[in-house]
Amino acid sequence: MADHELFELGDFALQHGDVLPGARLAYRTYGQLSGDKSNAIVFPTWFAGTHEANEWLIGEGKALDTERYFVIVPNLFGNGLSSSPSNTAPPHDRARFPHTTMYDNVRAQHRLVTERFGIGRLAMAVGTSMGAGQAYQWAVSHPDMVERLAPIAGSSHTSPHNQVFLEGIRAALTADASFNGGDYAEPPRTGLRAFARVYAGWGLSQAFYWQREYEQLGFATLEDFLIGFWESNFADWDANDLLAMIWTWQHADVGQTPGFGGDTRAALASITAKALLMPSKKDLYFPPEDEEWSAGYIPDADLRVIPGVWGHLAAGGGDPQAAAFIGAALRQLLDHTPHE
Amino acid sequence: MADHELFELGDFALQHGDVLPGARLAYRTYGQLSGDKSNAIVFPTWFAGTHEANEWLIGEGKALDTERYFVIVPNLFGNGLSSSPSNTAPPHDRARFPHTTMYDNVRAQHRLVTERFGIGRLAMAVGTSMGAGQAYQWAVSHPDMVERLAPIAGSSHTSPHNQVFLEGIRAALTADASFNGGDYAEPPRTGLRAFARVYAGWGLSQAFYWQREYEQLGFATLEDFLIGFWESNFADWDANDLLAMIWTWQHADVGQTPGFGGDTRAALASITAKALLMPSKKDLYFPPEDEEWSAGYIPDADLRVIPGVWGHLAAGGGDPQAAAFIGAALRQLLDHTPHE
Repeated sequence: MADHELFELGDFALQHGDVLPGARLAYRTYGQLSGDKSNAIVFPTWFAGTHEANEWLIGEGKALDTERYFVIVPNLFGNGLSSSPSNTAPPHDRARFPHTTMYDNVRAQHRLVTERFGIGRLAMAVGTSMGAGQAYQWAVSHPDMVERLAPIAGSSHTSPHNQVFLEGIRAALTADASFNGGDYAEPPRTGLRAFARVYAGWGLSQAFYWQREYEQLGFATLEDFLIGFWESNFADWDANDLLAMIWTWQHADVGQTPGFGGDTRAALASITAKALLMPSKKDLYFPPEDEEWSAGYIPDADLRVIPGVWGHLAAGGGDPQAAAFIGAALRQLLDHTPHE
Repeated sequence: MADHELFELGDFALQHGDVLPGARLAYRTYGQLSGDKSNAIVFPTWFAGTHEANEWLIGEGKALDTERYFVIVPNLFGNGLSSSPSNTAPPHDRARFPHTTMYDNVRAQHRLVTERFGIGRLAMAVGTSMGAGQAYQWAVSHPDMVERLAPIAGSSHTSPHNQVFLEGIRAALTADASFNGGDYAEPPRTGLRAFARVYAGWGLSQAFYWQREYEQLGFATLEDFLIGFWESNFADWDANDLLAMIWTWQHADVGQTPGFGGDTRAALASITAKALLMPSKKDLYFPPEDEEWSAGYIPDADLRVIPGVWGHLAAGGGDPQAAAFIGAALRQLLDHTPHE
């Protein structure tokens, strides 16, 4: 039995003009929607993850407490559960899967939230990494709906350096000739391993490695960690799916929301949610200074930097101290009563 | 006419037991050796560079002033001028080229300095990046010879994170099947481009890209910069040569000098030179905190952090402010009279 449900979007018109035929969102919910439908939280997924990757924050007694909140986790287009290159019928499969934006994802999620659940307000939009990008997009696309915004280790628009980082992993993956422009019979395993090895340097900080924190995770050597953690993490992902998500990530920018004409500052200034931005101190591709920039344009924004050496993966729940920091901050944000 | 000279080492025994037959060092000298041979500086090359890449610091009126100093620039094994996979006769060519260490490089350079020039003391050992690693090795291998030590944007031993960064570029290069274990007829161009695109994220800082400094360099777009600067920079390098230098870099550690049994701290403590360590503020693979660690063990060490957003490439002379900072610091170090 699937651990998630599907929401059919039909033929879904995309921001860049294509139509995704038979589009669908995979999602999972946690907790109960209250009678007045005031306790819903949307918590989209991150790159190369499904709803399961979000569950460390969700449950009884956790920050997203299922005794109080109804948590909807929609899966990102391209992640293999929602419409993706790997699960879409020809001719829109594989490398022909159309480009989807953060805006497209949130428009689909808005249909899920309003049509399936009849929800008109969200207590919070929260996400980590690419999930943070979707949370930002929620706050810009639907300022009337989003009471609180909590982007964690993410950004309102993908910075030039972040784009370059993504170019690197993309180039490493596609350097494997067996990738064959996306028309592979067998997975491009060499490319996936190269992708993972490049990612390994970015996903955690210099200090994480200096302190040999991977030994605490049970890996005897650096090479064991590269194979057992990083290569293993990406080995089963479909290469076209990864590339579809990378495209979405590279092109993320709330300024590209219709009506803002590319003006990221204006899009940020339109946010009415109470915002709490949580970059991670040593994040190598979503550095805290980028989020300081965004905080400067959001009318009601606080910024708290997640401490520690886990860098980007501080947002993944693997570091107990970072996890506790994030949980406490989210509880505090949720306990704040919007004044209106 | 070649712009460099060759020093023949004969069959050169290497630290790990192999012999490099017909080994040779390519080098160039600048300025005149003084009568008492007291004015020599050794300035080894960095990764994927030759002596030409060092010349921004050398010349009349420059920090390494050829009116005062005799500057010897020995080329790193593997860089295509000194013995390398690309210029060594079978069967020791290509992927069969033996592994060379920082210790091996400095032992060869020591023969050049003493046998060809009869020099017994060096006013300074200086280098950037992998050149800094060789400068450190000089100070540990020959404490009796090295009066001043100036490692710039480098380290005394390659940190675990730096090793992971190098694994990433290695994996990207070799993911191209035309690399063929090093036995390529034509260069593995796809792999070299992937290598360059991964490198692009590491070689400069997040802030460099955020501020779109590449536009100041004449590149209209990020993609232009990736192609015109990064891909162009590595396109003509031999893949086996790059991998030979990467091996040397990954295994760099002054603690591996014979007599120290792997104890990096003890090797640093043995340095008698007056040392000035210059990490670059936003260097992503030689971060300043690693050099603070090294400075803590060297008896007479100062540390000055190169300011600005150029990250690792601050050590390449392309950023005028960083170049001026480095030049001024080297002048000050050279003007210091050793007390002995």
